[in-house]
Amino acid sequence: MRKKSSAAIIGASGYAGEELVRLLLSHPDVDLVAATSRQFVGQTLAQVFPRFLHHERAKALKFVDVDPKQLVSAAESIFLALPHGVSAEVAKPLVDLGASVIDLSADFRIKDAAVYTEFYGKDHSAPELLKTAVYGLPEIYREKIKTAQVVACPGCYPTSILIPLLPLVRAKIVDLARIVVTSLSGVTGAGRKVEPDYLFAECNESIRPYGVPKHRHLSEIEQELSILADEKVVIQFTPHLVPVNRGIITTIYTDLGKDVVDLDPGLLFSGACGQEPFVRLLGDERLPDTKNVVGTNFIDIAWKIDKRTGRLIVMSAIDNIVKGASGQAIQCFNLMRGFPETAGLI
Amino acid sequence: MRKKSSAAIIGASGYAGEELVRLLLSHPDVDLVAATSRQFVGQTLAQVFPRFLHHERAKALKFVDVDPKQLVSAAESIFLALPHGVSAEVAKPLVDLGASVIDLSADFRIKDAAVYTEFYGKDHSAPELLKTAVYGLPEIYREKIKTAQVVACPGCYPTSILIPLLPLVRAKIVDLARIVVTSLSGVTGAGRKVEPDYLFAECNESIRPYGVPKHRHLSEIEQELSILADEKVVIQFTPHLVPVNRGIITTIYTDLGKDVVDLDPGLLFSGACGQEPFVRLLGDERLPDTKNVVGTNFIDIAWKIDKRTGRLIVMSAIDNIVKGASGQAIQCFNLMRGFPETAGLI
Amino acid sequence: MRKKSSAAIIGASGYAGEELVRLLLSHPDVDLVAATSRQFVGQTLAQVFPRFLHHERAKALKFVDVDPKQLVSAAESIFLALPHGVSAEVAKPLVDLGASVIDLSADFRIKDAAVYTEFYGKDHSAPELLKTAVYGLPEIYREKIKTAQVVACPGCYPTSILIPLLPLVRAKIVDLARIVVTSLSGVTGAGRKVEPDYLFAECNESIRPYGVPKHRHLSEIEQELSILADEKVVIQFTPHLVPVNRGIITTIYTDLGKDVVDLDPGLLFSGACGQEPFVRLLGDERLPDTKNVVGTNFIDIAWKIDKRTGRLIVMSAIDNIVKGASGQAIQCFNLMRGFPETAGLI
Amino acid sequence: MRKKSSAAIIGASGYAGEELVRLLLSHPDVDLVAATSRQFVGQTLAQVFPRFLHHERAKALKFVDVDPKQLVSAAESIFLALPHGVSAEVAKPLVDLGASVIDLSADFRIKDAAVYTEFYGKDHSAPELLKTAVYGLPEIYREKIKTAQVVACPGCYPTSILIPLLPLVRAKIVDLARIVVTSLSGVTGAGRKVEPDYLFAECNESIRPYGVPKHRHLSEIEQELSILADEKVVIQFTPHLVPVNRGIITTIYTDLGKDVVDLDPGLLFSGACGQEPFVRLLGDERLPDTKNVVGTNFIDIAWKIDKRTGRLIVMSAIDNIVKGASGQAIQCFNLMRGFPETAGLI
Repeated sequence: MRKKSSAAIIGASGYAGEELVRLLLSHPDVDLVAATSRQFVGQTLAQVFPRFLHHERAKALKFVDVDPKQLVSAAESIFLALPHGVSAEVAKPLVDLGASVIDLSADFRIKDAAVYTEFYGKDHSAPELLKTAVYGLPEIYREKIKTAQVVACPGCYPTSILIPLLPLVRAKIVDLARIVVTSLSGVTGAGRKVEPDYLFAECNESIRPYGVPKHRHLSEIEQELSILADEKVVIQFTPHLVPVNRGIITTIYTDLGKDVVDLDPGLLFSGACGQEPFVRLLGDERLPDTKNVVGTNFIDIAWKIDKRTGRLIVMSAIDNIVKGASGQAIQCFNLMRGFPETAGLI
Repeated sequence: MRKKSSAAIIGASGYAGEELVRLLLSHPDVDLVAATSRQFVGQTLAQVFPRFLHHERAKALKFVDVDPKQLVSAAESIFLALPHGVSAEVAKPLVDLGASVIDLSADFRIKDAAVYTEFYGKDHSAPELLKTAVYGLPEIYREKIKTAQVVACPGCYPTSILIPLLPLVRAKIVDLARIVVTSLSGVTGAGRKVEPDYLFAECNESIRPYGVPKHRHLSEIEQELSILADEKVVIQFTPHLVPVNRGIITTIYTDLGKDVVDLDPGLLFSGACGQEPFVRLLGDERLPDTKNVVGTNFIDIAWKIDKRTGRLIVMSAIDNIVKGASGQAIQCFNLMRGFPETAGLI
Repeated sequence: MRKKSSAAIIGASGYAGEELVRLLLSHPDVDLVAATSRQFVGQTLAQVFPRFLHHERAKALKFVDVDPKQLVSAAESIFLALPHGVSAEVAKPLVDLGASVIDLSADFRIKDAAVYTEFYGKDHSAPELLKTAVYGLPEIYREKIKTAQVVACPGCYPTSILIPLLPLVRAKIVDLARIVVTSLSGVTGAGRKVEPDYLFAECNESIRPYGVPKHRHLSEIEQELSILADEKVVIQFTPHLVPVNRGIITTIYTDLGKDVVDLDPGLLFSGACGQEPFVRLLGDERLPDTKNVVGTNFIDIAWKIDKRTGRLIVMSAIDNIVKGASGQAIQCFNLMRGFPETAGLI
Repeated sequence: MRKKSSAAIIGASGYAGEELVRLLLSHPDVDLVAATSRQFVGQTLAQVFPRFLHHERAKALKFVDVDPKQLVSAAESIFLALPHGVSAEVAKPLVDLGASVIDLSADFRIKDAAVYTEFYGKDHSAPELLKTAVYGLPEIYREKIKTAQVVACPGCYPTSILIPLLPLVRAKIVDLARIVVTSLSGVTGAGRKVEPDYLFAECNESIRPYGVPKHRHLSEIEQELSILADEKVVIQFTPHLVPVNRGIITTIYTDLGKDVVDLDPGLLFSGACGQEPFVRLLGDERLPDTKNVVGTNFIDIAWKIDKRTGRLIVMSAIDNIVKGASGQAIQCFNLMRGFPETAGLI
């Protein structure tokens, strides 16, 4: 058996944090040594999350307050599952102490502090870290992640959008000025926010668009698409809230140039991500369904060419909390620690 | 009190049929005199639908088989809530007998029998009726509906798409070649189909696109948009199934020409449908939510201009069974019979 | 047309308050003249509840603060939809000013202030009103309600339990010491409480008992059963939370004495409530389903005799917000004002 | 690594069958060598269940027809996930060929063929097997299961009822004549039945009792309770259907004799099942919630003494498809094969 690696979670009481607890407790190579939550200090993980009541470590480990020195000395890797803004502040001393940090917030995803300010409405508290932080999408940045000190895990929507668009934008097969994206997300996507909008009776039997037209995730989506295309890419993106706990369906409309009517998307996708351990290509016969990915780290991708309109429609399904957050964080962690990329995830 | 008008429903056991029963039983100007359902012949409406157990008429009226002569002699208006294909066959003798027919299927929506065959996979059995049938969207065809013998009620998706697009396409303010539409629908949209795909555990906690890229409703949507624009319009349309009983959210992406950046959509929408009794304009501050329209005949419309992309995004919400089917059918019936358009609907 | 009666709602922003708004806006005999909500003062009803956006009164009427004199001078009847404890405090000056009060909280349901203190954990602030307040269950107290100044509308669980038990307890056909009641309620039963337990992702895909073994509603249930039986009745009651917006199913287990094995419950129920306008007797063939009563003021009642165990099982279904709260309040209001009991409710 | 054991599933396309596939594919000691389904012969597991699309075995293994000789020669253990009635017919030749059979239907649960006929409405086709089949509840029959040739896995409701009642009935602490049980189940409990009652829009926003008063599972519940008590036990049991995919909450009302008011249920439960690997005792402070057990093989048990009524209320939560069916089947399989009881389940 490989030697276990120690890990800590800061902000372990939200949905992404709870999922990190679940995944790390069952990860064969991990020793979960600490978890913080201001709200639950002194209670065990099992008390706060009764689903872990059978787990010895969950029954023993108590939530603590954030003490950077103690955390860094106890844990080789530190996961941050905190609200944006807070995360950068908490990360700074950890990084200074040499910690290996995997951040699930938006705070280290944006390269340009001005863009961060534009989209998140406040100045970045540790802009110097933006240069070295690596965007934690293994399907693009696998090698960089392996040696990063700070990994910024992508948002859930960006994950569901960037992986399918990767081969199309890199090859510039589609009209970069005309990408339109619609996403549908389950309610945990909003986090464990105790607000009227997320009460059961407000979400159940409700469907609604939100964040129109300039959702915050656009900042990282366009940043990454622009890097892939090596030119500025601006897209249209509309998220919708639907009454499921977990899951995102993303439907992407791309315009094919007339020259590429003979395009075989299957070849393109196979070439780009046919070997990816967490990408499942459904081809042009099946359509994705969130129920096939919920609870897993997979992204399912399907496509259809519409000859009537000259568009290629690409659709993806992920679990917003796993591949869209905590699972992807573990995937990055595995890369950083030299474990098999799928360890603890399949 | 106005004299009541007699009405019958053929195919009253599906979701649209049941909703017609509900609306007609409580319509102040209607006397529901007959309902047919092969499956339930001999049972009363109240036995089949226990929600009507308190209603005297529902306790007395028994489902019968279709007998055209009897139906036509008993009822001034006949609603058809049958599957496409079946509906045209049943309608033909009724029309020949002089009946006033309000059809909820797709059978009389398409002007061109060849297009019907292309999208519905079979030849039309009464193509001669296609010329005189009126498309039952009061927001466009109010006057024609008043004098029609056969009204073809629009599909649920087309209703949610055509009303918001009406002013934009008529005024040709948007690029007609680049309209992209995403819709999200509740499960009753599929009808009361006893198929594995619509079982509770297959739909609950599931989100999925379907009918990509050429859903049948495209035939009537493009027909009507082309009439409005007086040129051929082809659009992109992707429906998604989400786990609610009722409700459709439609999100429409339109490209504004550069000349119209100063467009005030509010003026445009107010002018086009500000006086419509069932259109509620939310403006550019609020976003639609199906829970505000479920159970009603309203369509809520909102919009946002995205200056970053030059697009105008228009969103609508309807109840697929009411404004998208049975409510709109009653609205047409009211027009045909000379009742107030909102009778029995508000 | 009858002359309209003026009404006001205090605490109109919770689920029961919103439902009162809906019902009163469409009540043919009511003029809704005022609505209060600390949170939304200055906003119109239509702004806070977009489902009423088409309604002229809802667009005109703004939420105000509670001003007893103004309310009493403006409205003949005042509905209180406030948390328990708060309600008695607000009601006191209104009653002193001579207002006709229909209270939806628990504050005036309990005759004995000591029992109130035991179950609600605080002393009653207006115990002198407990003597004159009438328990607003028309199926028991119809005549008293007609002349009451203060009506205390029953809780949702008590409504679903007391009506079915009424004939059994009054006739002492069942063993009064052995009544066991299980109820299942939708999430609006908890009110619009912004607490983690009621977030979508905490309730969806969750079933759970709560309030075991001494739920507050026991105080009024046992009080009323004891009055009916003219002896002290203690029952077992366990509520469960299930992921629907609205609806309560109550299943009641009663022990029949050996002498009554020939009991015909149908005769008993028909005799007791066969003429009640909102009671629908399903008999011993059908079972209740909340979806048949949601949105209505009906209570559906079914029963089965189990010869194996000597028990009579009685089951009921109501909408917790309508017959369990706001609809029943309107039913009482109709009785108090001399309107037909079903006005605005069917 | 231990040597893998070969297993086959007959009837792998229902919900229990699909869950067996999931659990066996990831079981460290199992080689899934065959799966049958009349409906899907020739398709791979991955084609039928896209959630397994990444799994090599699921991509390779095709559904076949039932060929007893071939199955018995290929697989050391055979799981049957068939409808009752069918299962006994299919099992007979397998048993004659010496196969080790784990049956998930009701066919081998009842010792007395006459009781089977009474509750299941048909004669048993292999009554001679009833004597040797072992009821697959490890918490009672662990030792017998280890050496059984045919294990009859308990129904989902019986599992949720028998484990909590085990210590109470064995010790005869409660009045055996007065046990009342209410259960609430998710919709997969009905199996993948393509019937109108289980369509999404019929179950969603619906709560309903069913199977009142004599649900089939009573036969095995009372059989096992009678064995435990060594006297005939008759109970009251009412199941309810609620709109979740998975999960059962069972609430049990028991009458304590007056002598046992000082009972400490905690001691009793700890003694009886404190060491059980899949029983989690919540005590008298917490209440169960299905969301803590869904996807797992755990049963959570809580209790409350109600001094007002002299009753002990015991509540349990399980996943009906895991501990209530396929997980428990694997637990039995582990015992039969000598693997750790929790292998592949935690």
